[in-house]
Amino acid sequence: MSKINVAVLGATGSVGQRFIQLLENHPYFQVTHLCASENSAGKTYADVMKKRWKISGDIPKYARDIIITLPDPKVTPGVKLAFSGLDASVAGEVETSFAEAGIHIISNSKNHRMVENVPLLSAEVNANHLDVLSSQKTPGKIITNSNCTIMGVTISLKPLYEKFGIESVMLFSMQAISGAGYPGVPTMDILGNVVPFIGGEEDKAEIEPLKCLGKTEGGKIVNADFKISAHCNRVPVFDGHTVCVSVKFKKKPSESEILEAWSSFKGEPQELKLPLAPDFPILYRQEEDRPQPRLDLETGRGMTTVVGRLRPDPILDWKYVVLSHNTVRGAAGAAILNAELMYRKNLL
Amino acid sequence: MSKINVAVLGATGSVGQRFIQLLENHPYFQVTHLCASENSAGKTYADVMKKRWKISGDIPKYARDIIITLPDPKVTPGVKLAFSGLDASVAGEVETSFAEAGIHIISNSKNHRMVENVPLLSAEVNANHLDVLSSQKTPGKIITNSNCTIMGVTISLKPLYEKFGIESVMLFSMQAISGAGYPGVPTMDILGNVVPFIGGEEDKAEIEPLKCLGKTEGGKIVNADFKISAHCNRVPVFDGHTVCVSVKFKKKPSESEILEAWSSFKGEPQELKLPLAPDFPILYRQEEDRPQPRLDLETGRGMTTVVGRLRPDPILDWKYVVLSHNTVRGAAGAAILNAELMYRKNLL
Amino acid sequence: MSKINVAVLGATGSVGQRFIQLLENHPYFQVTHLCASENSAGKTYADVMKKRWKISGDIPKYARDIIITLPDPKVTPGVKLAFSGLDASVAGEVETSFAEAGIHIISNSKNHRMVENVPLLSAEVNANHLDVLSSQKTPGKIITNSNCTIMGVTISLKPLYEKFGIESVMLFSMQAISGAGYPGVPTMDILGNVVPFIGGEEDKAEIEPLKCLGKTEGGKIVNADFKISAHCNRVPVFDGHTVCVSVKFKKKPSESEILEAWSSFKGEPQELKLPLAPDFPILYRQEEDRPQPRLDLETGRGMTTVVGRLRPDPILDWKYVVLSHNTVRGAAGAAILNAELMYRKNLL
Amino acid sequence: MSKINVAVLGATGSVGQRFIQLLENHPYFQVTHLCASENSAGKTYADVMKKRWKISGDIPKYARDIIITLPDPKVTPGVKLAFSGLDASVAGEVETSFAEAGIHIISNSKNHRMVENVPLLSAEVNANHLDVLSSQKTPGKIITNSNCTIMGVTISLKPLYEKFGIESVMLFSMQAISGAGYPGVPTMDILGNVVPFIGGEEDKAEIEPLKCLGKTEGGKIVNADFKISAHCNRVPVFDGHTVCVSVKFKKKPSESEILEAWSSFKGEPQELKLPLAPDFPILYRQEEDRPQPRLDLETGRGMTTVVGRLRPDPILDWKYVVLSHNTVRGAAGAAILNAELMYRKNLL
Repeated sequence: MSKINVAVLGATGSVGQRFIQLLENHPYFQVTHLCASENSAGKTYADVMKKRWKISGDIPKYARDIIITLPDPKVTPGVKLAFSGLDASVAGEVETSFAEAGIHIISNSKNHRMVENVPLLSAEVNANHLDVLSSQKTPGKIITNSNCTIMGVTISLKPLYEKFGIESVMLFSMQAISGAGYPGVPTMDILGNVVPFIGGEEDKAEIEPLKCLGKTEGGKIVNADFKISAHCNRVPVFDGHTVCVSVKFKKKPSESEILEAWSSFKGEPQELKLPLAPDFPILYRQEEDRPQPRLDLETGRGMTTVVGRLRPDPILDWKYVVLSHNTVRGAAGAAILNAELMYRKNLL
Repeated sequence: MSKINVAVLGATGSVGQRFIQLLENHPYFQVTHLCASENSAGKTYADVMKKRWKISGDIPKYARDIIITLPDPKVTPGVKLAFSGLDASVAGEVETSFAEAGIHIISNSKNHRMVENVPLLSAEVNANHLDVLSSQKTPGKIITNSNCTIMGVTISLKPLYEKFGIESVMLFSMQAISGAGYPGVPTMDILGNVVPFIGGEEDKAEIEPLKCLGKTEGGKIVNADFKISAHCNRVPVFDGHTVCVSVKFKKKPSESEILEAWSSFKGEPQELKLPLAPDFPILYRQEEDRPQPRLDLETGRGMTTVVGRLRPDPILDWKYVVLSHNTVRGAAGAAILNAELMYRKNLL
Repeated sequence: MSKINVAVLGATGSVGQRFIQLLENHPYFQVTHLCASENSAGKTYADVMKKRWKISGDIPKYARDIIITLPDPKVTPGVKLAFSGLDASVAGEVETSFAEAGIHIISNSKNHRMVENVPLLSAEVNANHLDVLSSQKTPGKIITNSNCTIMGVTISLKPLYEKFGIESVMLFSMQAISGAGYPGVPTMDILGNVVPFIGGEEDKAEIEPLKCLGKTEGGKIVNADFKISAHCNRVPVFDGHTVCVSVKFKKKPSESEILEAWSSFKGEPQELKLPLAPDFPILYRQEEDRPQPRLDLETGRGMTTVVGRLRPDPILDWKYVVLSHNTVRGAAGAAILNAELMYRKNLL
Repeated sequence: MSKINVAVLGATGSVGQRFIQLLENHPYFQVTHLCASENSAGKTYADVMKKRWKISGDIPKYARDIIITLPDPKVTPGVKLAFSGLDASVAGEVETSFAEAGIHIISNSKNHRMVENVPLLSAEVNANHLDVLSSQKTPGKIITNSNCTIMGVTISLKPLYEKFGIESVMLFSMQAISGAGYPGVPTMDILGNVVPFIGGEEDKAEIEPLKCLGKTEGGKIVNADFKISAHCNRVPVFDGHTVCVSVKFKKKPSESEILEAWSSFKGEPQELKLPLAPDFPILYRQEEDRPQPRLDLETGRGMTTVVGRLRPDPILDWKYVVLSHNTVRGAAGAAILNAELMYRKNLL
């Protein structure tokens, strides 16, 4: 199979930068277009990003001399797929225009996430949700990935949900500042501080996992039917969302059953050996004080969900801790993995 | 009433320093003895603390020239009361020896906390627990205060427990590094990181509030009978423990009933206008992103418990956020307030 | 003497907030007007600042219900003096309009700092520079204070310059993030990082101390004639600029001569016992690892310059470290102290 | 050439861990022995390090099952070379015992650094200093690398010193907390703070570069003869020492001459393409706000010295900023590069 041409929408933003980094030398995708707003259009990516590239290391060479274009399918000839890291204020309309022009959209934005025939795709969790694409009426299809906070949580819940059923989940997040993009969180708000509020985040955390874990029915996705309560907090960590989780199961499993469910969990990305797929979607750490962002973030090149501290919960059944790399697994990496899955399933 | 002579045990440690700061010019207590280990005994406090005083501002003048003695009642003549910030490894034995010598102990250490005739006293919450002192057999009495993490939580629960009854409480803490004393947490472990584990903390958090909210019966304290589940985390914050709380009530109150219960809550410290008592034990903040350590820590000179973000919980009934100053309200300040209460009730 | 009515220009910004905090219950000044841009004008200060007040503790009560007006002398009747924390983009024009309307301006902005008949006033350092005000042609006079970074440095140099003369000064700053205002420095740029660049800062640091230490001649200020080289860096500290200083003197003093020059240094603010004047403008700390922002920032309620680590410099003569509170002594506090001095000298 | 067997002394410490990480799959060296104190000896490395491994990612597999031995040449049969990350309190004696036993020592400890026939080796800077090894009387030779703070500074000075001569250098460091090892700096001392003092650091910074840049004469190293003044500071950065440098030259170069000297600089490691050698020892960044630890630390896998902000100095001649990875280029990486050089020069 030959590489297909792709565009990155919102190429100057935080998620856009991560797309550009992770797509360097990608075996399936060739980035031919970088799209951003009028302020940047017409200039080379290197010029525009001189002071705005915020990932350790340099801008990949392939991207430096690409001249930025507007996020308009009329000016992206030859592109079959667009990765979108657009701001929610514009993502809805732009993504739809690409889909109407026959360009598939793999989006990290929230705009289309909850539409019933748009998969909220996490490649190991709900690859079967791609079935609903046929009920989308545009020639290009829209596929979204979930909010960064619940990405790892949902992955950790998937094998438990399948085997034991879930009645309720309490989530308590400690989220990295990179989740707010750039410039994002002012230092005066978070240095040596925590902020027990992130606008809109708890709403997303209480609904998106239900869609990811839902089933398809008549070309639509029907949400799973348990309850989630979320407390979302911002902490002075650069990358990596840590979430404390308490779960009440339908059929309470033993400790070893949970550990076995996690260690044996694999999805299509592992079977197909997709380029960005980690060897293990979930890694359980035995140490009493793990996972931690600093020590565990890069597990599986940032694509593995790291869990730890499984112990009984006096109120619900079990409690544990989940760590996920919010800008890799929780955003650009997840989106690219979704695209890789579609590429290998001949859906692009 | 005249001032009574007091000693500070563990005077060189973190809690000891805070005792010394808060007891400067105290209207009831005169610090006459500072006690520490053999390494420090025989030297002036100023000499020993030259590089170890870690509170912003200088060592109070009154303490500078006191010659440190061992924590032994034989060398603290005239002392009627001792504030203990001793390490748990020695606190048990030393505190008992003072009590046997007729010196009352107001302790921040965990050793005697769960003894059934030792009050786990939070002056606004359970002043009535002082009744069990008479069943202590030593001439000096031992009074403890609770773990810093659940201090504010327990205060916030007290008026709700009284009025509406509680079935279960989920706690998720984000705890400041000062809670681990000095040198305490190595920077390599916490800078730009969170650690989802604090040794022994969850056990204390799941039991101590039950004792504080318990009742007295036959010279003993009988714990309240609801369930608590705690997730305890360390975050890179200097002072101030922030705790997310979800509560299931026996009789579910309305939002306004909860707010009214908090705003009208007062205890004996407020009625007696004790020196360290805040005007309001609990302050509810209306802003959607509060309380925060940086902005709210000093409320009521660090003695007020600040709550915010009251909202429905999809699984239990209500959820909210609590902030408490861990080294003031959660340690030395609470202990001194307890002593003030006893002083005014003629129990010293 | 009765209180005079004052306005705060740029009342919603970082410096404006500090003005409002420090002017609460001020014995000389009554804040009657708070001025800000069109977005805020017409609303009460409390309404506008609900999410923007960034100083620990609440908005002072006196300011909460003041209705914000535009920074226009036509709408500030009765005001004799205006404290300006305006952004440099508008400060020049607005401050001039107030001066023309007969209202004195005490400004923290850089716009007029280097005008030769505008004092760059640091009350203990160059009170005599007020002599040049008579050569300003407007009925209201403009007085500025220096950049926050060099405020403490200049104070520490003043007694040395007077007694021993200076040939050259090397400065290396580690500056707090509050110096950049709000939202200011994005967290992604500074968390766990240092940035060895602050736009325009080194230029100011290399010239402003020379004006502060200059002399008056014919209604103008003539700069001191030594050389300064500055390296300015941003570090993840909330408040407090720490500066390493190396000095080459005209006549090299001994260690004790320097310490004596610092300890004996006093200015008119101390003689007049001005409300914001610290007892000692300069405090030398003996400990080998001081000054530090966390431990020394609040010395003299943030108005004292703290120095330490005086030791020989192998290339120049002596080196030491200076700490100054950048938003108090380096901004609003310095401006108010300047106003207090003028008030007592009947210059208002 | 076949691999040679090596030991790591001080294998459980911070530098030891970095040695173990960087020696994984090394083409020249096979780690056969890990040496540490009595507390660890006799146990497997994985057992001992369960809670002490502080590098992101897991302990390399090859090291996990090695049984730790004491740092004694009698129990390290077959070892030809030992990398020492020993604490200075024991390094002197232990290293000498290995040299006497015929085992070469590549040491990161300070003990032998200033001995006149012990090279203070920085492979690109002073490979010729290996000539003095023949004057060491023990069968094993001792080679040291310099303090982490001045490693990058010395590399940046080397081509300038060669071409233009140097009269004096002012250094101002902002040093990462990892430089103090583990547990190292207590969080209470550095979170949101800077400490303008590091014990012994300025002394090393003012002398070690002179030895590195010195010449050999009669089997000894004769120091370069210019002067250095250093201000050393600790900042809340995890890895990466940033140093502001001002230089007075013998023959003042132009800006382009300096940039050319840096960009053309190569040493034997580059010519020999040593495994750990970066392609370029020095990289100059054009951006006005670089280098920064977060963005530039990993340049050349942590082995490249990154410089920036070259500009005229009003007092000396030129000033600039240097960043170096303190635990890679400044410690274990430098030591291994030194060993690689010796291996290829048949000195092992």
